[in-house]
This record gives sequence, structure tokens and C-alpha cells, in this order.
Amino acid sequence: MGRVTTRRRAHHLTGEDTVARPETLVVEEPLEIRLNGTPITVTMRTPGSDVELAQGFLLTEGVIGHRDDVLTVRYCRGADEDGANTYNVLDVTLAPTVPMPNVDVRRNFYTTSSCGVCGKASLEAVQLSSRHCPGDDPSTVPAGTLSAMPDKLRRAQKVFASTGGLHGAALFTTDGTLLVVREDIGRHNAVDKVIGWATEQDRVPLTGTVLLVSGRASFELTQKAVMAGIPVLAAVSAPSSLAVDLASQSGLTLVAFLRGDSMNVYTRPDRVTR
Amino acid sequence: MGRVTTRRRAHHLTGEDTVARPETLVVEEPLEIRLNGTPITVTMRTPGSDVELAQGFLLTEGVIGHRDDVLTVRYCRGADEDGANTYNVLDVTLAPTVPMPNVDVRRNFYTTSSCGVCGKASLEAVQLSSRHCPGDDPSTVPAGTLSAMPDKLRRAQKVFASTGGLHGAALFTTDGTLLVVREDIGRHNAVDKVIGWATEQDRVPLTGTVLLVSGRASFELTQKAVMAGIPVLAAVSAPSSLAVDLASQSGLTLVAFLRGDSMNVYTRPDRVTR
Repeated sequence: MGRVTTRRRAHHLTGEDTVARPETLVVEEPLEIRLNGTPITVTMRTPGSDVELAQGFLLTEGVIGHRDDVLTVRYCRGADEDGANTYNVLDVTLAPTVPMPNVDVRRNFYTTSSCGVCGKASLEAVQLSSRHCPGDDPSTVPAGTLSAMPDKLRRAQKVFASTGGLHGAALFTTDGTLLVVREDIGRHNAVDKVIGWATEQDRVPLTGTVLLVSGRASFELTQKAVMAGIPVLAAVSAPSSLAVDLASQSGLTLVAFLRGDSMNVYTRPDRVTR
Repeated sequence: MGRVTTRRRAHHLTGEDTVARPETLVVEEPLEIRLNGTPITVTMRTPGSDVELAQGFLLTEGVIGHRDDVLTVRYCRGADEDGANTYNVLDVTLAPTVPMPNVDVRRNFYTTSSCGVCGKASLEAVQLSSRHCPGDDPSTVPAGTLSAMPDKLRRAQKVFASTGGLHGAALFTTDGTLLVVREDIGRHNAVDKVIGWATEQDRVPLTGTVLLVSGRASFELTQKAVMAGIPVLAAVSAPSSLAVDLASQSGLTLVAFLRGDSMNVYTRPDRVTR
């Protein structure tokens, strides 16, 4: 579809100079995901790998657990006023055995507790929804292998270099082999695309893998790693308190500030070997 | 409440050395916002300035237009199983003249068009919802004044320095005076806190101001600037295509890659003077 980047004219100012020139930008467009025809979420994303994005989202929200839970994923035929398909609405048809979730998947995730919402309720919700337990995964990964991953991600991030506007997510085996890289303007979308790819490859639960993200490790990204059964989440930047708490509860190894040969291992450090 | 940062033990690895030490982390907790008792959204945020966050969210989503549209904002008395108030649920009581929005504020924003969703529909939705028009604001700001803003924001970002985990947003007058700085693990929350502060100060529409964000300029942040009547949005990192399109449509000056004396001005460059 060729819509990952676009150009807009800008005035570039430095010191006393002003130059009008075209600048390359990353494309941001809404994607509506429908389940059996019912809209369940809208996310602002970078077009591309949309079918993976939808499946990764559904898997990490606990709606599906396996690729066979999805019958079809199709762009809606709806067109805009110019008669063109916007390619911004995907309809997912679930297998007959898969129950329809509450219409608001995300909100439902947080409101299972009598105390309204709190960190503890968020942790419990993941525990209840997850079909996999990263804690049981006996995989280990050498520290040196982890240290080499951010460079591999950067080399594979083609669009970031031209726009500076994209988050990257990559999946590696614990011996450092790169399996897949996806980019998106939203960090959660980049991770959903990676996990959706793995779903299509029938590789979930993702035992023996490392998920690397180019930014910070939030609760949401940690939830996605747990839901996909990934044993190691590594982030280039900082983790949040709730991300560490969820990793601790789930037996996930959480590595952050992964820079050069330096890193912090917050949980399950036994998986990081010398 | 003192819950902005917390500490967790981590293994810090460098080269051949491993040290177990406590690390300071930014706190992430869910906040549920209710309108007249009905839950309308849950956002993962850093505690603090929650009342501003709720009001900024409601203003930038078009639910309220003025501080008088809000009668009260109170933490719910609901407690968790240990009997403690979680301070994670805020109930906003609207003035009787203010109509209750559709329960899902965000989704409603994007589904006003017959073409399902598309960038054009997102732009139209902002145009329909906005009570202010940044395009009419005659303010100008010297390029040198803009260049000095990122340093002022960094100096005021106390928590980022200790955790590396927070986004910052700041509001300046066009002569470079810093009005307010807010930090949050979510960039949209930091902006909502700033705009909620301005709502409480009865300063909306925010004519004659510059909103500075520490990261990228997405559609969502641009929408918030437009909804608050801010004439200039400046970002340290890259803008997205839809952010530039919305700024162009709304007459907002969008500055990005603001670093040292260098910057790109994508829209309404007449407001940036030498």
C-alpha cells in the first residue's frame, strides 16, 4: 500500500537560515477493528501489517488464544465519499467456538475488581486472562546476546532512519537470531504486529524468545509479552513500577536500560547468563 | 500522595560486573474517570495532578468547554480489599446544562463519518468538536524564544532525571515565560494535566501560548492543542502525517525537531519570527 511514509513541505530553520524543503513523515491513520461486524476498538497506527496487528491485539487482550480461533480477517468494503476503500477498517470473523468478548475489550480488562481500578486489579486481570505462564519457561539468554540486540533492531528499522517517528519491536530467539521486526507510530501496535506475526506462524506461546522494544517498558507492553508466553522482555529505556510488578508476578524476565554492555535486570535474573 | 516514584531491587550488569541495587522507577497506576457516576475511560498514568488530568481529558475530548461546566471532581470512596482508598477513581459531576457524552468518548470521536474511519474523518471530527480556532490567534513567537524552551522544560522535569521514565509537557507564553510543567508516563496525560491546569485557571482558550512536548507530535497531542485553542505546538521529536494535516486544517503552528537553534516549522510559519 506504500503508505508508511509521506512528504510535507516544511520551513527548516537553523541559526539565521531558513530553507523551505520537503520532509519525510511517518504516516498515522486510524484503524478500526471489528469482531464479527461489531466495532471493538480504534487505534492510531502506521498502515502496514494490519492483519497481524489485529490478531496480535486480540491475542494480547485474551480474546483469542490460537490462530485457529480466527476464521477470516478482511478489510471492510466500505468506501469514503470519493469512492475509495480507506483500508482502515478490518473485520475479524471468530471461529464459532470463540465467545464474543465484552464490547469494550480494554476497559473490561481493568474492571474485574470490586475496588474499582488499582494496580493490583490490573495484575489480577492479566493473571486471570493469560493462557500461558512465562514463569515455567526454562530458557536462558547470555548477557552478551542481549547486548547485541538493539543494534540488530536499529539496522532493521528502515523507516525510523528516514522519519525519526517510529517505535520498533523485534522478536529474537534466545541465541540471538532475529525472527521479525515491526515498526509503528504506537509502541503497543509495533508489539501487536510482532505477536500477530507469531500467531499466524502458529508460534504462540513464544517460549524460548526475547521481545525487544525500542522505548520504555510499560504495563501494557509487559501484559502483551505475558499474554503471548514470552519469557524475556528487553527495553532500551526505563520500565514502570507496574511493569516490574507484573513481570515479577508472571515469572517474566524484565530487562531495561539495555545500552551497550550495560543493563538492569528487574525480575528473574536467573535467565540472564554470563 | 508521594506515589510518583518508587524503588525496586534490580541486578545492574556492566561488562563482567553484576551489582544488586535498588533502582528508582516511575509509578504507573490506572485512573478511571467517571462522569456523573458512569465510568467513561481508564488511562494508565503517573499519580499526581489527577483532578487536572480528568478536566484536561474532558476538555480536549469536547465534553466540557469551560471550568464552570464542572461542578465537582472527587475521588470515589471505594476501597480495595485491604480497606484502603486506591485514589484511582475520580468522579466528575457536570453542571446540569452540560449534556452527557456517548459513553465511549474516544471511540465516538472517530466514528462520525460514513466511511468508517479514515484520516479525513478524524480531522472532521476535531473540526466539529472544537470550540476554538487557533487559526485566528495573531500571536507570534521569536525562533530564539522557541529554541530556549526545551532546556527550561528539562530543568523543570524533576522526576525524569531520577527515573528516565516520564514524558514532559510545558505551557509557555509567547515571550518564553514558563506557566506550568507536568510529567506523566503517558505523553497524552502530561498534556491533559497541563490543559486541566489551564482550565482550572480559567485560561482556556489558551491564546498567546506555546505548548511544548518532550517527545513526538502525534495526531492525539495535536488534537488536544487545537481543542484548547493553543496557537503553537512545539515538539522535540518528529511529527506524524496526520498531526501536520490537522495543524494545517486548524491554523495551528506546528514546530518539531526543536533542538538547539534548529527546528522544522510545518504549518503557519508566519508565527515564527526572527
